[in-house]
Amino acid sequence: MTTIINNEELTTISKDTDCITLINVFIVEPENQQLLVDLLVKATEEVMCKLPGFIAANIHKSLDGKRVTNYAQWQSIEDFRGIFNNPEAVSHMPAIGKIAQSDPTLYEVCYTKHS
Amino acid sequence: MTTIINNEELTTISKDTDCITLINVFIVEPENQQLLVDLLVKATEEVMCKLPGFIAANIHKSLDGKRVTNYAQWQSIEDFRGIFNNPEAVSHMPAIGKIAQSDPTLYEVCYTKHS
Repeated sequence: MTTIINNEELTTISKDTDCITLINVFIVEPENQQLLVDLLVKATEEVMCKLPGFIAANIHKSLDGKRVTNYAQWQSIEDFRGIFNNPEAVSHMPAIGKIAQSDPTLYEVCYTKHS
Repeated sequence: MTTIINNEELTTISKDTDCITLINVFIVEPENQQLLVDLLVKATEEVMCKLPGFIAANIHKSLDGKRVTNYAQWQSIEDFRGIFNNPEAVSHMPAIGKIAQSDPTLYEVCYTKHS
């Protein structure tokens, strides 16, 4: 889900939504962290954001330099799986795989709490 | 950051915020996934949400049963670290540690994209 606050479009996290959540944690050497971010941004801009069912991607850099995590939302499992049947999307993966291990996992939100 | 949509308070993800993001991926046996969710909810309700600097916690269950991930926001690194100096917070950790391995990592949001 997304919302617009102060002219900025933002991802929102909710139990009551039909979308699925992809949390993909990449393990990377700190000297390659920024390169990995750049590769993920390029893949998102050039391909992912144009694929059917794409809702949002949010790239996070760990403060210790050892992780990059994408918190993404897709409309359905099938839409997410479609990435791997898209030659242009797949073409971005070897460069990413050279410098990082990933753990792409699909989730549903089951509980939220705010202060 | 949080916002209210249809009377529901929701976490929002933004580059332009002072909060820090904790993404904690727990690896768990599928038969213990729901128990782990229950323990994390209990710890959040009883302690975490009352600690200084707590903004939000969002518990996610993986569709394959093998992961539970908490996407949380705290006002500062020091507020997050304060958890480990709080005896009541620490008292919840052994039960969680018995059934899951965790990877608590602090992040900043560096890129967002929406369809």
